[in-house]
Amino acid sequence: MESYLGKGAEIILPKGGLDEKLIQAKKGGRPLIIKLGFDPTAPDLHLGHAVVLKKLKEFQEAGHRIVVILGDFTAHIGDPTGKNKARPPLSKEKIEQNAQTYLAQLSKILDVTQIEVRYNSEWFDQMSLRDTIQLISSTTLAQILERNDFKQRYQGGIPVSMHELVYPILQGYDSVVIDSDVEIGGTDQLFNIQIGRYMQEVRQKVAQVALCMPLLKGIDGSDKMSKSQGNYIGLTEEPNTMYGKVMSIPDSLLLEYLDLTTNLPKEERQSLIHELEGGRNPMEIKKIIARNIVHQYHGEVAALAAEEFFYRQIQLRSVEVKDYSQFSAQSLGFLPSSVPLIDLIAAIEPERSRSQIRTLVKSGAVQINGGKIVDEHHHFSVSEEILLKVGKRGYYKLVP
Amino acid sequence: MESYLGKGAEIILPKGGLDEKLIQAKKGGRPLIIKLGFDPTAPDLHLGHAVVLKKLKEFQEAGHRIVVILGDFTAHIGDPTGKNKARPPLSKEKIEQNAQTYLAQLSKILDVTQIEVRYNSEWFDQMSLRDTIQLISSTTLAQILERNDFKQRYQGGIPVSMHELVYPILQGYDSVVIDSDVEIGGTDQLFNIQIGRYMQEVRQKVAQVALCMPLLKGIDGSDKMSKSQGNYIGLTEEPNTMYGKVMSIPDSLLLEYLDLTTNLPKEERQSLIHELEGGRNPMEIKKIIARNIVHQYHGEVAALAAEEFFYRQIQLRSVEVKDYSQFSAQSLGFLPSSVPLIDLIAAIEPERSRSQIRTLVKSGAVQINGGKIVDEHHHFSVSEEILLKVGKRGYYKLVP
Repeated sequence: MESYLGKGAEIILPKGGLDEKLIQAKKGGRPLIIKLGFDPTAPDLHLGHAVVLKKLKEFQEAGHRIVVILGDFTAHIGDPTGKNKARPPLSKEKIEQNAQTYLAQLSKILDVTQIEVRYNSEWFDQMSLRDTIQLISSTTLAQILERNDFKQRYQGGIPVSMHELVYPILQGYDSVVIDSDVEIGGTDQLFNIQIGRYMQEVRQKVAQVALCMPLLKGIDGSDKMSKSQGNYIGLTEEPNTMYGKVMSIPDSLLLEYLDLTTNLPKEERQSLIHELEGGRNPMEIKKIIARNIVHQYHGEVAALAAEEFFYRQIQLRSVEVKDYSQFSAQSLGFLPSSVPLIDLIAAIEPERSRSQIRTLVKSGAVQINGGKIVDEHHHFSVSEEILLKVGKRGYYKLVP
Repeated sequence: MESYLGKGAEIILPKGGLDEKLIQAKKGGRPLIIKLGFDPTAPDLHLGHAVVLKKLKEFQEAGHRIVVILGDFTAHIGDPTGKNKARPPLSKEKIEQNAQTYLAQLSKILDVTQIEVRYNSEWFDQMSLRDTIQLISSTTLAQILERNDFKQRYQGGIPVSMHELVYPILQGYDSVVIDSDVEIGGTDQLFNIQIGRYMQEVRQKVAQVALCMPLLKGIDGSDKMSKSQGNYIGLTEEPNTMYGKVMSIPDSLLLEYLDLTTNLPKEERQSLIHELEGGRNPMEIKKIIARNIVHQYHGEVAALAAEEFFYRQIQLRSVEVKDYSQFSAQSLGFLPSSVPLIDLIAAIEPERSRSQIRTLVKSGAVQINGGKIVDEHHHFSVSEEILLKVGKRGYYKLVP
C-alpha cells in the first residue's frame, strides 16, 4: 500500500522506505524534512524542474517541511582549475541575486513562505583541512567512481580533477546537517542522493529516502530538457513564447508532456490519450497541453490570449501573407524527424550567409509556429505543416 | 659530466636535472635545498634508511641545506576510517617524542645541528576546506592513480578511502612551501616526489629534482628491508645483535650489502668482489661487512668486541656444548633457500606446541648465528652450517 506521495516517481530507494518514513512521522507527530538542492550558478528553472517541484508541492500540501540547500559554498569557489569557463567563481552578491531569482520562480509552484532556505557555506566555511580529511575518509574511490560520468571520463582518458570527486561528498553531507528524511530530484540526481544516504548511515543516522522523478525530454525530443541544450521552456517565459514552444514539440512527446507538464486530472488525461489513439488530430491535443501550461504559470486570461495570438500570428497569416512559399523537408534533403534549423534556412534563403543566419537566430528573429528559437543548433521534427518566420519578411510553410 | 652527488642513485629525474641545479646554485652563490620527508609514526631507522641518509650526508658535506619535513599533520589525524589499527592518531607529545628519537638516529649519519626541521602542521593547520579544494584541484584522478598501489587496490576491489588519495598531494605541497630543489628518497618514493615536482610546476616554480636511491633487501633476502617484515637491522641496535644479524644474511646479498651498507672505499669493495669470485669463503666477506657496519654505528672498539663475542658465542660453543645436535634442512623436508623458522623448530623440538614456539620467538629467545629473531614469519637460507639457539638449552647446528 504505497502512499500517493510516491506516485509518479521513477525511483524510490529503499523500496517501501517512503511509507516507513511517513508512518514514523505520523507516530512522532512531526513533519518530514524534504531536501531540495539548488546550484546557484543556474537560477533559470524550466518545465523539467517543475516535474520535481510539483512533487515537492504535494509533500508541502501534506504538511511536510521543504528545506532548500543553496550550494553557495562551491558556487563561490567555481572551477579552480580554470578550465571550465562556464563555471567562474560567483560573487556573494551574484549568488544572493540568483537565490532571489530562484525563489521567485519556486513561488510559481511552491508556497515559499513555508520553505526553509539554508546556505551550505554556513557549515563548509567553518571546515578545516583536518575536518575535510575526516569527512571524505568515510567514502571510497570505488563508491565515487560509481558515478558513470566520472568512471567514463577516467576510463576515456578525459581529466577528472580531484576536487570534482569531493563535491558529491559535500552535497551528501548537506543531508547530514539538515537531518533530511527524503531527498527529491531527477533520476540524474540518484548518485548524489545516495551519497547523502551513505553519509547519514556512517554517522548512525537514519538514511534519507531517495525519490527520483522522471526526466522531461526537451522540446526537440532528442534529449532531456536543459538550458545548455536550448531545448527548454522556462517557467518565467512570456505566455506567447511558452505557447508557441509547446506547439513546436514533436507528436512523439505528447503522452510524456500530458503526464509530466500538465495538471489535468488523471481521468481527463486518460480520455485524451484514448481520443488520440482513436484518431483525433495530435495538433488539438497539443493545444490543450499548451493552454494548460500557460494557464499554470500565467493564469487563465494569459492562456486564452496566447492561444488567440498563436492563431492570429500563425494560422491567419497563412491567408494574409501573399508570397507564402511552401517547402518540403524531404525534397530539400532533410529527414523530417530531425531538421537542422540553420541548414534549412540556408537552403530556402540562399542569399544569406550561414554566419548571417546564425546571428539572425541568436537575435530572436526566427520563429517556428510563433515561438522564438534562439539556439543555433536547434533541430526539430516536421510531422505536419509547420510555419517558419525568418527575419521581417520571410514567411514559409514547411511540410514533411 | 654528472656530478659525484648523483653517483649510486637508481633514478634521477629529469635527466641532467641535478647537474643543472648544481650549476644554478653555484651561480647564485646559494646552497641547494634538499628535502627529506619523515613520517613520525615510524621513528625506527634501519640500514635501508641509511642508504638514503648517506646520500644526504654527501649533499650536506658539499654545503647544501637539508630540510626535514616532519609529517605531524597527518600523523595527528591517523587513519580516520578506523580500519587500520596500525595507524591510530598520535598525540602531540608522542609525535614530539618520535621526532626526537628520529633526530637522535639521524645524528648517527648527518650533522643534525645543520639540519632545518619543519613540522607540516605549520601550514596545514591553517588550511580551510576552501583552500583544500583549490589545492587538490590542480591534480587529476589519473595522476593519483598512477601510484600502482592505488590502482591495483581499486582494480582488485580493495577499498581505497578518498582521504588516502589526498595525502600524496599534501606531501607534494610540502615541496612548494620549502622551495625544495632536490627531494631524496628510496625508489618507492618516486611517485610522491613527482607529485611534489608537479605541485611546484603548476605554481610556476622550478620543479625539484627527484633522486631515488636503491632499496636495500632485508636480511632474509626476500623483500625490501622494513620494520613490519621484521627483516631489518636497526641503526641503534646493540653491536652484538647487529653483527649477528649481518652474519645471518644469505650469500646472495653479499654484493648488495657491500655496496649499500658499508663505507669501504670503492677499490677495496672491488677487490673483495674479485676475491669472492676467485673462491674466497663468503663467510669471510660477511665478517668484513659486519665489522664495518658495527664500526660505522658504534665505533671500532665495539666492532672488534662484537666480532669477538660472535666467535665466543657461536664458534666456541660448537666445542663447549656437549649435546649439540646437528640437523639437515633438506632431510627435514625444507628447501635450504627458504627455511621457515617456526616450522623448523617444530620439527626439531616436537615436544613444543606451535603456539609455544611462536611465543618463544616473539620473546627474543631464538637466535640464528647469535642474532635474535623475533619475527614469527622469518624465513632464512642455509648455504653453510648455521647455529640455532632455541630457549635456554636448545643448541643446534643446521646444515643445508
